[in-house]
Amino acid sequence: MKIHGVHHRTIWLSDNGWSVRIFDQRQLPWRIEIAELTSVEMAARAIREMWTRGAPLVGATAAYGLCLGLRADASDPALEAHYKALLATRPTAVNLRWALDRMKAAVKPHQGERRVAAAYQCAAAICNEDVDTNRAIGEHGVQLIEALARANPGRTLNILTHCNAGWLATVDYGTALAPIYLAHDRSIPVHVWVDETRPRNQGASLTAFELAQHGVPHTVIADNAGGLLMQQRKVDLCIVGTDRVARNGDVCNKIGTYLKALAARDNGVPFYIGLPLSTFDPSIARGADIPIEERSAEEVTVIYGKSNDGSVAAVRITDSPAANPAFDVTPARLVTGYITEKGVTGTCDVFVPEVRKSG
Amino acid sequence: MKIHGVHHRTIWLSDNGWSVRIFDQRQLPWRIEIAELTSVEMAARAIREMWTRGAPLVGATAAYGLCLGLRADASDPALEAHYKALLATRPTAVNLRWALDRMKAAVKPHQGERRVAAAYQCAAAICNEDVDTNRAIGEHGVQLIEALARANPGRTLNILTHCNAGWLATVDYGTALAPIYLAHDRSIPVHVWVDETRPRNQGASLTAFELAQHGVPHTVIADNAGGLLMQQRKVDLCIVGTDRVARNGDVCNKIGTYLKALAARDNGVPFYIGLPLSTFDPSIARGADIPIEERSAEEVTVIYGKSNDGSVAAVRITDSPAANPAFDVTPARLVTGYITEKGVTGTCDVFVPEVRKSG
Repeated sequence: MKIHGVHHRTIWLSDNGWSVRIFDQRQLPWRIEIAELTSVEMAARAIREMWTRGAPLVGATAAYGLCLGLRADASDPALEAHYKALLATRPTAVNLRWALDRMKAAVKPHQGERRVAAAYQCAAAICNEDVDTNRAIGEHGVQLIEALARANPGRTLNILTHCNAGWLATVDYGTALAPIYLAHDRSIPVHVWVDETRPRNQGASLTAFELAQHGVPHTVIADNAGGLLMQQRKVDLCIVGTDRVARNGDVCNKIGTYLKALAARDNGVPFYIGLPLSTFDPSIARGADIPIEERSAEEVTVIYGKSNDGSVAAVRITDSPAANPAFDVTPARLVTGYITEKGVTGTCDVFVPEVRKSG
Repeated sequence: MKIHGVHHRTIWLSDNGWSVRIFDQRQLPWRIEIAELTSVEMAARAIREMWTRGAPLVGATAAYGLCLGLRADASDPALEAHYKALLATRPTAVNLRWALDRMKAAVKPHQGERRVAAAYQCAAAICNEDVDTNRAIGEHGVQLIEALARANPGRTLNILTHCNAGWLATVDYGTALAPIYLAHDRSIPVHVWVDETRPRNQGASLTAFELAQHGVPHTVIADNAGGLLMQQRKVDLCIVGTDRVARNGDVCNKIGTYLKALAARDNGVPFYIGLPLSTFDPSIARGADIPIEERSAEEVTVIYGKSNDGSVAAVRITDSPAANPAFDVTPARLVTGYITEKGVTGTCDVFVPEVRKSG
C-alpha cells in the first residue's frame, strides 16, 4: 500500500541482502521511521515491544528473525534457541508459531550456508504468500460489500472496524481492511468508523493513518461509541481481524472486539472476521483455552501522542494501578462469517482440513 | 467525602455568603483547584465545559447558577432568561431540568430580594436532599453487596463501574459508588474495576481518584477490557449511574454503558443502576427518544494527563476526523435493578408515581 503515494510493504530486505527493514509503528502516525533489524535478538525485541505488530506481520517478522539468528549461528542447538526466543515474544497470535514451524521444517534438512539460504527463501515465500492471501481475502470480502451496496443504492455504507487489521498488520493489503480498500478502489462509497482501540490506540494511530493515506473516508471514535452507532443504524457492517481462531470458531482478537460483536448481534449488524487460514488453530478446542497476553499496566496509564510543539510526548492519565489484558474472545455464535483467502463461510468447520494440511 | 482526610462537598457557598465554589474537575486528579462562580454566565460555562459534571451535581450547580443570575437581576424576564441559559448547557441529563423547574416554582411567588433569598434557600435544599438521597441509595445498595459477600465468604468481591457516579458527580457520597463506599466502610472486601471511560477519562481521573482518597482497592482498565473480565468470572457485579431513565426503564448513561450491560447479560453478571428518583423522566417514553449530546471531536483526539515535568499537558492522538456522542441507551431488558433512595427494584414502574408527585 502507499505512503505519500509510494508503494511500500511493511517488511523487506535492505540493500545488503540480509538485514531486515520494518516500520517502527510506535512512531506512527507522527513519524515514519524505518528500523533495521540485524539480529534475532533485535527481531524478538521488535515483536515484543510492538515496533511491528499484527498477527500476519508478526509471523513474517519472526520468520526473518530466524534468518538473522541462523546467519549468526546455523547449528541445530542455535536453531532451537532462536525458535524458542521468537516464539516467546507474544503468546496469543498463532501465526507466530505457524511461521516458525514452517521455517524450521524448511531449514531442518540443511546445514550451514545452505540452511541460511533456505531460511531466507522460506521467509520470502511466507511474505509473498501473505500478500497473495490478503489480496484473495479482499476479493472475497468485497463481494459482501458489493451486495450491501446493491441493497442500499445511492448511499454511503458505514463499516466499523476495531484495532488495525490493515496493511500495517500484514505484509501488504491487510486482512479486515483489504475488502474495504478494494470497495473504495471500485468506487463503492464506503465510510469507516475507526475504533480508537485503547490502550495502544492502534485504530486512531494506524488504521486512521492507513485509511487517510489511501483516501478512504473515515471517522475515529472512542471504543465506547460503537454500540450507540449501531443502535442508531449508523453501522452497516463490522469487519475485524483476529490473532487466533479456535477449532469451534471462537475468535481471539484485540481486547474489546467481543463487546462490538455483542452490540452487532443485539442490533442485527453483520459481524465478519477477515483472516488468513494460518490463523485457524485446530489444536485449540475453544476460545477460552487460548492464552490471553497480559501486557504492561503502563500501556493503559501512559498515552503517547503529538504535543503542542510537534514532538511525540507521553502523558500519564492516572497514578492508580491498572490491568492490561490484550485480547478477548468472541464466541463463534456472534460471528456472521469468516472471510478467508478461500472464500467466505459462516462456519470455520469447512476450513479445518485445509489448516491441518497446511499446518 | 474526603480529600487528604478532610471532608468536602463538591459545591458550597464561599465566605461572602453568595458566590459558589466548586472543584474544577478538569484538573483532577493532578491538581485540586477550586473555582469561584460569581455569575449565571460563569455557572453555565462551568457546566457546559465540564468544570463540574455528573447528573446530580449539574442540577445543583444549575440551581446555584440561577441564584447568581437572580442576584444580578431578579425580574421575571431575567428569571426566564437565566432558566433557559442554564437549561441549554447539557441536553441529556434530566436532573438539570428537574432542579431548574423546582427552583423556578420556588422563586416564582416572590419578587426582588425575597426572590433571591428563596432561590438560595431552594438551592441549599436541593444540595442537602441530594446528600440524604445518596446516603439512602448507599444504604439500599450495600444490602446487595452484603448478600453477595454472604454468598461468597472469604473472598474479595469485584465490582465494575463506568464513568464517575461517585461523590464528584453529586454533592456528596455519589450514586453508583455510594453502596461501594458503604461496603468498604463496613469491612466487606471489595475491589473496583474502574473503566477508564474514554473520551474524557472520568473513570481514570475521577473515580480512581475518589476511590484512592477513600482507600478502596481498585484497578483502572481500558473500556475494552470489561467483557473479557466478565468472561473470566472476574466481575461479580456492575453498578453504574445514569443521566436519565425513560418511562420504560431504558437507561441513558455515559457512552459505553450499553456495551457493558450487554456483556453482563451475556455472562450472567448482575447489572444495577444507582440513581436518585429525580433522574426518572416519565415524560420520555423510551430511551431512543432521549436527546444524545454530541460533544467536540477534540475530546476524542486530544488527551490530557500529567507530562514528564509534572505539568498537565495535552497530546493529540490523531489528525483524522472524530465523532463524540457522549451517551448511549441501555435497554431496560439488560438492567437487573435500579437502586434508588426508596429501595431497589427490578422495574422502574413502581417509581413513576413518585416521580410524578415530586416532579
